[in-house]
Amino acid sequence: MSGLSRLSLNTATTKKWTLEQAIEGCVRAGIPAIAPWRDRVAEAGLERSAQRIREAGLRVSSLCRGGFLTAADPEGQAAALADNRAAVNEAVALGTSELFLVVGGLAPGEKDIQAARQRVADRLKELVPVAADAGVRLVLEPLHPMYAADRALISTLNQALDLAAPYAPQEVGVAVDTFHVWWDPQLEASIARAGREKRLASYQVCDFNLPIAADALLSRGMMGDGVIDFATITGWVRQAGYTGDIEVEIFNQDIWDADGDQVLATMKERWLELVQPFA
Amino acid sequence: MSGLSRLSLNTATTKKWTLEQAIEGCVRAGIPAIAPWRDRVAEAGLERSAQRIREAGLRVSSLCRGGFLTAADPEGQAAALADNRAAVNEAVALGTSELFLVVGGLAPGEKDIQAARQRVADRLKELVPVAADAGVRLVLEPLHPMYAADRALISTLNQALDLAAPYAPQEVGVAVDTFHVWWDPQLEASIARAGREKRLASYQVCDFNLPIAADALLSRGMMGDGVIDFATITGWVRQAGYTGDIEVEIFNQDIWDADGDQVLATMKERWLELVQPFA
Repeated sequence: MSGLSRLSLNTATTKKWTLEQAIEGCVRAGIPAIAPWRDRVAEAGLERSAQRIREAGLRVSSLCRGGFLTAADPEGQAAALADNRAAVNEAVALGTSELFLVVGGLAPGEKDIQAARQRVADRLKELVPVAADAGVRLVLEPLHPMYAADRALISTLNQALDLAAPYAPQEVGVAVDTFHVWWDPQLEASIARAGREKRLASYQVCDFNLPIAADALLSRGMMGDGVIDFATITGWVRQAGYTGDIEVEIFNQDIWDADGDQVLATMKERWLELVQPFA
Repeated sequence: MSGLSRLSLNTATTKKWTLEQAIEGCVRAGIPAIAPWRDRVAEAGLERSAQRIREAGLRVSSLCRGGFLTAADPEGQAAALADNRAAVNEAVALGTSELFLVVGGLAPGEKDIQAARQRVADRLKELVPVAADAGVRLVLEPLHPMYAADRALISTLNQALDLAAPYAPQEVGVAVDTFHVWWDPQLEASIARAGREKRLASYQVCDFNLPIAADALLSRGMMGDGVIDFATITGWVRQAGYTGDIEVEIFNQDIWDADGDQVLATMKERWLELVQPFA
């Protein structure tokens, strides 16, 4: 089996590529799985996307992403539910059972983080049955606390597991993204808990670059370029029983500006050196 | 008693002021306490600084800061201990019992966050007796996880309390700085724990501004300008039994560029509206 057998390209890494280009890039590079973002799927058309991915022989490791569930007004909440229902259908069409949720931040002007977090729990109550009926697992992704206010009020893996607790493991899972959680003093214990609770639905790797980029969203780096110890975290994920695909998802202007095939070549090198031996 | 009776100016807020100017500014504004940074004290001279603060009738709420304890080499560790011994002596001379520690990040090139965190514990073992002999409490400050790699490997209040646990409450305390901890899902419980364990040594307020500044260190904002719910967090700190000074410490280029007296005027307004009623 190739050393690449669990590697998946999250299409955010090659932002300037269309979905078709990303599919072709994976095939050229011998990368067996892909995690498409919904905007790229929408551009190409859902049925066409699903067909092209199937024809190329790629697995879909996850769909990125639903979420943004924290609207405080009924209209915003209805819109969020409608969008997430659509995302569930897209996941089904694409042949993946894993739908990432980036749950959203505070409502505009809001300061009550506890109320906003409660709204995430409330929307999950409505959304889980929809996803479960379709055979799709909602994957709660804790984001780095620097994004708590405007992107995701889930800031730690333990918090994600607490939110998932009312549901069956096949209904609500959690994701470990090294960038978001590497700093957490409870990370080892939380990953072990996710394994015990059978909720480890995805493992994403990228590095935490310093200094933090001027646009803080773009501080994600190629594995090896930042401060993260992939051997240790990957080992914890392995010990927790995770055997699925491992996605590389990098938001980084330099990487976006680089040639896509070269990015995939570097990604494979770093994967084989820093992640795969410990996975 | 004036509504300002627990307000303290951390001199980082008025970065362009000398210590003398900050002292005079506090006196003009009716602010009864000050938290000097060591570089400002060094500029003015230690004895002179202590004398001027005494003459002005100001309390010293804390000294900022010691720390940076994570060097991996013996020379770096010796230098860190020497610097922190000096900081202890400066705290004594200035008449404060509270010495902030920003514990430092990874060593250059290091990726082993667990080893680096262990070095913090190891250096504390050496430093605590020195500080305790001088009647100075070491105040562990959890910093926002975005600074974990390069400034402070203590990222949550619970982690700070765990590190403090081997020592008496009067030897090692913890600080709550709203900017650093507002996002923490365990914040309420951690603040209560700090109170129970009698380690709540300082409360600092400033806001978390969005978007994150291009220099991520400078995202601290004036209370009310960002996303933080001061009423709630201040209430938790009060319930935990904290009755000490409350420092305003803001790193923010716009505030640094503004007229110092105007900054203090705004600070008092926001304090009286957003913090003091709940303290």
